[in-house]
Amino acid sequence: MKIIIAQLNFTVGDINGNLNKILNAYEPVKDQDALLVCTELALTGYYPQDLLLRDDFLNRQQEALTTLVNATRNNACSIVVGYAAKNTSNKGKPLFNALAVLKNGSKIFEYHKQLLPTYNVFDELRHFEPDNNTALFNLDGVKFAFLICEDVWFEDSDYTYENDPLKEVEGKELDCVISINASPSNLGKLEQRRKIGKRVTERTNAAFIYANQIGGNDELVFDGSSFVMNRDGKVIEQAPAFDDSIVEIDFDNIHEAKELVDNKLGAYRKEAFLFNQTVLGIRDYVRKCGFNKVVIGSSGGIDSAVTLAICAEAVGSENVTAITMPSVYSSKGSVDDSVELCENLGIRLLTAPIADEFALAVKQFEQVMGDMPSRLTQENMQARIRGRMLMEFSNQYGALVISTGNKSEMSVGYATLYGDMNGGVNPLGDLYKMEVYAIAKWLNESKGKEIIPLNIIEKEPSAELSEGQQDSDSLPDYPLLDAILKLYIEGDLLTEIEREQSEAVLKKYRATNDLITQIHSMVDRAEFKRRQAPPIIRVQKRSFGMGRWLPVAAKYR
Amino acid sequence: MKIIIAQLNFTVGDINGNLNKILNAYEPVKDQDALLVCTELALTGYYPQDLLLRDDFLNRQQEALTTLVNATRNNACSIVVGYAAKNTSNKGKPLFNALAVLKNGSKIFEYHKQLLPTYNVFDELRHFEPDNNTALFNLDGVKFAFLICEDVWFEDSDYTYENDPLKEVEGKELDCVISINASPSNLGKLEQRRKIGKRVTERTNAAFIYANQIGGNDELVFDGSSFVMNRDGKVIEQAPAFDDSIVEIDFDNIHEAKELVDNKLGAYRKEAFLFNQTVLGIRDYVRKCGFNKVVIGSSGGIDSAVTLAICAEAVGSENVTAITMPSVYSSKGSVDDSVELCENLGIRLLTAPIADEFALAVKQFEQVMGDMPSRLTQENMQARIRGRMLMEFSNQYGALVISTGNKSEMSVGYATLYGDMNGGVNPLGDLYKMEVYAIAKWLNESKGKEIIPLNIIEKEPSAELSEGQQDSDSLPDYPLLDAILKLYIEGDLLTEIEREQSEAVLKKYRATNDLITQIHSMVDRAEFKRRQAPPIIRVQKRSFGMGRWLPVAAKYR
Repeated sequence: MKIIIAQLNFTVGDINGNLNKILNAYEPVKDQDALLVCTELALTGYYPQDLLLRDDFLNRQQEALTTLVNATRNNACSIVVGYAAKNTSNKGKPLFNALAVLKNGSKIFEYHKQLLPTYNVFDELRHFEPDNNTALFNLDGVKFAFLICEDVWFEDSDYTYENDPLKEVEGKELDCVISINASPSNLGKLEQRRKIGKRVTERTNAAFIYANQIGGNDELVFDGSSFVMNRDGKVIEQAPAFDDSIVEIDFDNIHEAKELVDNKLGAYRKEAFLFNQTVLGIRDYVRKCGFNKVVIGSSGGIDSAVTLAICAEAVGSENVTAITMPSVYSSKGSVDDSVELCENLGIRLLTAPIADEFALAVKQFEQVMGDMPSRLTQENMQARIRGRMLMEFSNQYGALVISTGNKSEMSVGYATLYGDMNGGVNPLGDLYKMEVYAIAKWLNESKGKEIIPLNIIEKEPSAELSEGQQDSDSLPDYPLLDAILKLYIEGDLLTEIEREQSEAVLKKYRATNDLITQIHSMVDRAEFKRRQAPPIIRVQKRSFGMGRWLPVAAKYR
Repeated sequence: MKIIIAQLNFTVGDINGNLNKILNAYEPVKDQDALLVCTELALTGYYPQDLLLRDDFLNRQQEALTTLVNATRNNACSIVVGYAAKNTSNKGKPLFNALAVLKNGSKIFEYHKQLLPTYNVFDELRHFEPDNNTALFNLDGVKFAFLICEDVWFEDSDYTYENDPLKEVEGKELDCVISINASPSNLGKLEQRRKIGKRVTERTNAAFIYANQIGGNDELVFDGSSFVMNRDGKVIEQAPAFDDSIVEIDFDNIHEAKELVDNKLGAYRKEAFLFNQTVLGIRDYVRKCGFNKVVIGSSGGIDSAVTLAICAEAVGSENVTAITMPSVYSSKGSVDDSVELCENLGIRLLTAPIADEFALAVKQFEQVMGDMPSRLTQENMQARIRGRMLMEFSNQYGALVISTGNKSEMSVGYATLYGDMNGGVNPLGDLYKMEVYAIAKWLNESKGKEIIPLNIIEKEPSAELSEGQQDSDSLPDYPLLDAILKLYIEGDLLTEIEREQSEAVLKKYRATNDLITQIHSMVDRAEFKRRQAPPIIRVQKRSFGMGRWLPVAAKYR
């Protein structure tokens, strides 16, 4: 038997499109003695959220499943597919997160996920009922256990479940454990999966097949990186990260397969990982929202520079427009840097000075209010005039605005709501400032030339909204700020090493408790801004958005 | 024994403040042979969201609980209080949604909620483990069952639970079932609670005490409306809606108590309910965010008029500023109507014409793009210049901007992101357009004078962003639009009567399937705007925001 992993990019809600992707993967292999393995909730896309409450949506999915069942009729190749199955018991949530084996026109096995993650970005108990059912199924003489994602994370979940689905399948002389997944990618996830895979093989003495989808769906990016371990826990097959892939395994000879030397995981060097994941997240967000062009405000600073580089890679530089919008406070260098950057990236740059509009806005404010606008008011005015211009371009030419705020800024509220926060999606919102710098340097290194002008990397960070303004006027040095933020926002999820690294930075800078408390308080007070921020492409263990749910009208410091 | 319901307004996260409210309620009654009943998660406020993941937060709550336990020492009065209790079993979520009885310096009973709502606005399984434990407890010779909120909703929840907590307490010759709640208010909720109360008394043959908190916490408004039923299911005591209250019941003589004639529920006439709930929601949002002043763009239309009336009631007209920002497309009547409205409400009105800024923005666009801005671009330009001006006022004077988009507009995306959608909170976002009109008429009626100028109620609705523009150019008549929207957004949650009413409107207007599909599609496509909208005060069964979770970069029509 062959086992064929279909590592595909599904769109949430696009049931027909998803079905067609599966059928296209099935067509060339349908005559083979094989099992085509599709991923979790493949037909609906992951995660369908409250679409799962709609009967019409579920009915359409049922039709797609029927089509898929019928496609296997008179063909040698079977299919494993994830979908939402009706819970007909009249107890509990109305659906199961299910998996079916389809063979020769019939559904011959059905399994329901036992562990339903409901933490961080997951909310599966909102829609699904956990089930106690057997994962064991023999197909064509091969003894399989079929599990779904979280089922094998019993020991590694954020949550301590009552039951361990692997218990049932231990000591059963299995040939293979297949886990179908929609496992969102973040820093450290690959290592966790490897560890889990190894444990599965140890506990079951069977081969382990880990099939994961790829693609961006709103905040979440799925990296794929499907893999196969032999029963000794050695990786013998590895799909690429961040790309569609069809992986074929000769299962009859799996024990003879050699451990992979080239594991295709270059994409996981930290800066490469952050860049690649963000690129895929932006590409899919833009595309799945029905856009093909984007527009970005180019300030000459590091954030907009890296955003432009990400977008050029994601949608092609010919589809990116940059607009530089200098004010009286912009340095000459800033515009020049934007010009050089856009030349390097092959991006069209428009120049739209805001001095006249800003002056008129100030005058208008004085006339109406009988008062000079304060420094804060004036700073926000400029950001909002720029934000409006970007939206004008978007309205007129159908380009999606991409916002540029990094995680450090979004944390402490160092951004203007309805100004530079404008956009359909934010690529840097889960990248700390020092990581943005690191990506810029890595980009230049890996391309072997200066893509991001050195001047942009080296100049003092400034919002240039007031005379001589620098970020360091109101914020601590970024390495320190980032360490404080990482501990505050993700502390409980970090590995010991990660925590120690951040704590070492605090020590090095002799961070006082007062400073730390002050930064925490800035993070808390900025919750109202983040509530109205565009979706952020998630790369860390805890990102702003669906994975971090906090009240606004509250008092908790 | 007396039973005393403390219907109080807690702030999420403000553990010390909440504790003090309880201690203040306890102080005057501490010497009485009584039981003071506080509500669900009283110490943390409902709902604390991911604050429940923080050890420091839980520790502070534990200290507050200890203080409360100690406060009962050497006093006759016991306390029932809701809080988050540690799950020490190492299985399942780390917390229980708990209730404790505190008496004379000890915690003498602890109960853990069995049914944890995880649907619509609820996500309790994210943090809490459901428990199987007894609700039965005898206190000073009175046989009680203590339950928490959803526990008594077994038959009325959106979700079919496995177990029914009332089963344990049936046939036990109980004296009293006490349910402590944090039950968010929406249309129809009161009737549901009454039905449930009646069923509890029928099944247990005991009195039923329903204690609910009041106040707004982000989107959710809690109405209070605590009540007491005798064992015949007659309401013998009723706390007011939308207000703090201490309700005392002479439990020894409860069977002699007469059914209430004046049930204090005038607040539940539909328009009054919508108005009162929104007023409380806005008042608490503004206050709990640390503001006391608000600012609102006054267009002369019905939405801003009703918003201004709500805000005047919520924070006092002296704390409300209206700004009228006429453009070349604004009718003379619009400004006059704003003037009259603000006079009626005693609100300061500023006038900030946008014609000059708009003209300059158009000129600037032409210069940069070499192109005339389209009608859509120009419309949004105006809305965004206005939105910026409101934010300038906010930045300069510390007033919270209140946005004015109603549910009909927010549904179909008839609003400008970063323009008229600007604001910290939106009072009308869960009110369909026809309900906004109904509130306006009811306000004039109930005050016995013209608060909302008749001209505002009677004129053709228009955004006045283009020459001669009217809402009816792009939208069907509002009664029809509202009916289509209500069925689409809330259909599965409506009562049969509500559904029939909406369907009758579709019939009356001979709504075609094409029109219905087109409106549905507008709703789906506007998801990206709602994702960045301010929190909306919830009044209906399903509101935009936390109760309706849908993807943006998706394809589901």
